[in-house]
Amino acid sequence: MSKSVIIHDTGGVTFPKGFRAAGVCCGLRKKRLDLALIVSDEPAVAGGVFTKNICCAAPVEISRAHVHSDTIRALLINAGNANAATGEEGYDKAVKCVEEVAFRLDCTPSEVLVASTGIIGVPLPEEKIISSLDELANALSEEGGCDAADAILTTDTCRKICSCTIEIDGVPVRLGGMAKGSGMIMPDMATMLACITTDATLTREAAQRMLSAACNSTFNRITVDGDTSTNDSVFLLANGASGAEINSNNAALFEGALRAMCMSLAHAIVRDGEGATKFVAVTVTGCTSVEDAEKIARTVANSPLVKTALYGEDPNWGRVLAAAGRAGVLFDPYDVSISFNDRVVAENGCATGVARADARAALKTKDITLKIICGEGDCSATVWTSDLTHGYIDINVDYS
Amino acid sequence: MSKSVIIHDTGGVTFPKGFRAAGVCCGLRKKRLDLALIVSDEPAVAGGVFTKNICCAAPVEISRAHVHSDTIRALLINAGNANAATGEEGYDKAVKCVEEVAFRLDCTPSEVLVASTGIIGVPLPEEKIISSLDELANALSEEGGCDAADAILTTDTCRKICSCTIEIDGVPVRLGGMAKGSGMIMPDMATMLACITTDATLTREAAQRMLSAACNSTFNRITVDGDTSTNDSVFLLANGASGAEINSNNAALFEGALRAMCMSLAHAIVRDGEGATKFVAVTVTGCTSVEDAEKIARTVANSPLVKTALYGEDPNWGRVLAAAGRAGVLFDPYDVSISFNDRVVAENGCATGVARADARAALKTKDITLKIICGEGDCSATVWTSDLTHGYIDINVDYS
Repeated sequence: MSKSVIIHDTGGVTFPKGFRAAGVCCGLRKKRLDLALIVSDEPAVAGGVFTKNICCAAPVEISRAHVHSDTIRALLINAGNANAATGEEGYDKAVKCVEEVAFRLDCTPSEVLVASTGIIGVPLPEEKIISSLDELANALSEEGGCDAADAILTTDTCRKICSCTIEIDGVPVRLGGMAKGSGMIMPDMATMLACITTDATLTREAAQRMLSAACNSTFNRITVDGDTSTNDSVFLLANGASGAEINSNNAALFEGALRAMCMSLAHAIVRDGEGATKFVAVTVTGCTSVEDAEKIARTVANSPLVKTALYGEDPNWGRVLAAAGRAGVLFDPYDVSISFNDRVVAENGCATGVARADARAALKTKDITLKIICGEGDCSATVWTSDLTHGYIDINVDYS
Repeated sequence: MSKSVIIHDTGGVTFPKGFRAAGVCCGLRKKRLDLALIVSDEPAVAGGVFTKNICCAAPVEISRAHVHSDTIRALLINAGNANAATGEEGYDKAVKCVEEVAFRLDCTPSEVLVASTGIIGVPLPEEKIISSLDELANALSEEGGCDAADAILTTDTCRKICSCTIEIDGVPVRLGGMAKGSGMIMPDMATMLACITTDATLTREAAQRMLSAACNSTFNRITVDGDTSTNDSVFLLANGASGAEINSNNAALFEGALRAMCMSLAHAIVRDGEGATKFVAVTVTGCTSVEDAEKIARTVANSPLVKTALYGEDPNWGRVLAAAGRAGVLFDPYDVSISFNDRVVAENGCATGVARADARAALKTKDITLKIICGEGDCSATVWTSDLTHGYIDINVDYS
């Protein structure tokens, strides 16, 4: 990242030039917006990063194919039904929805991307979607980013949007984004959907490469509950409306902005994780490789015992060490330091003698940095997570 | 297993001939038994299976070495302090405890095994243990199995013991066992300790081989929360007091009994898992290898979303399929059936149309069998787990 970029939590996907969006209620969810459409007036190029879950949803299969199209015009997203584990019928329904959108936008079906989120294994009532498409198309506007962002939420408690502007060769280039969480959140990816739009000019290859790289250090570094969903998708749409072209001279600036946008949305998802009361950065340093550091950070971030202790503001660093020790990474346990918000609770793998009340006080904040310093090398990684709470149980005890 | 063996949940480690045991309160836990000793009057041979966590506790390091001794006389176990992440000092304290036991039993320190369970990272108050050893040695008796079993419990809500008798060449051979759970429970291994005693005659090599094999299909197939502890240890002590020798002609019978004993204790641990209201067998069949089947079963058994749904008796099979899909095993999702207690809720990867009320009714029982049938091959595996509940959060929110 050659320059620091200021990310605003306003704007959304219609912030860049040439994008319109809308959100309506088609009846998949009761009295809430549940159907979103994002349209680029001019043909855009797209990048896409999808779940690695082999039980992926029908819309993921379709978008995974369409994202390679030379041009993309639209992204349709519904909440309330994942259209996953719905067989050929579910696939055909998703194709039908895509065709109906293409018809209304006067483009080919391969120029339309699609995503779904919601319950798995329930047949999609596609007629509800199709019968709302006229209303949705009519509602498209350059101010529709917020409605679209609201229409993709499920158990989220707040809208997740962001935007930024960078200058490329003297021309302002805009990026806008939206995302949803908030359970089944785990790298590679999560029950999460996100879309970043930009009015920069990108090649399709660059869009894909830059989005993949940005996801690896942002969306793929968050975890709420370790569950990877069937529907996770992140899209980048670039329509060139700003007139600024991204090339090797200015790519670093754009990539920095894209990564910062993804990071902002990824953090918003963790902050709004199901039942979350804490936002925890698990940072592991001193490893021989980034992969090792990430493995340890991820294992600690997914440990139910660590997460429950953080909920209780209990400085139980023994659980942190125990989780690190089962990560499958070799390190000397007696060369490890652990700190909560810079309060060092263990050094050389043993208690530092910091008073329990002091260690506990360090956990009072909503934002917590849990640092694990190994003595093996110079590589580090951070994984962001939330705590495990009664709220999580309440939300998930009877979801379907 | 050549014959079926009846396992009783009585008896404990003093059920076989020639073993004495005791449990006393040394003050590591308030007003509860917290120190156990098992002694074989005649020299025994031992097998041991230990945690794979690289941050293992001092007693694990010691027992891992001593278990190779030609003869073993005793096993000392304390609850209330794990003596893990306690450095050289913790190691020296554990050695001192072992030496003091050896002195009282007139044997060498290498004939004494040791195990600890409790909080990690707190210095062991070894003087409490040592000053109670005379009382402990005096209390040793052939009826002491229950006291010893009680003295190793932590968050467990009930004693876990078992016993059985088999006939080897016309001679009755006894096996006795005890174990503790009940959080940080995950294969390879768990915060669990277990000890099986037998009056059969075994070689040291056979004891180790048979115990390792038995653990693989029992203790290493249970999970409560996916957290592997620093202290997990399972011991087998064989003292030959029955006069019956295990050889290639009768090994299958003995191994079957040993496996059944381990299974009984492993199931007891899951049933008493922290906050558990359900006992769930996740059985995966139709895979190309046992490893694949186990991977899927373990991923489903560890999914917080699946476990919370089971707590809520919510037949949300989509979460089961989603968890299976991220297990890292290739299978055709549209060739999968899922059933709850034999109520088939998904076939060919899609809903069967069974009424939600019916599916829900199938989950009312405390014991649940969750079956996932793939269409890839003939291999299968079962992993046992509990549900994720408010009780789990309550127990772990402020453990230290």
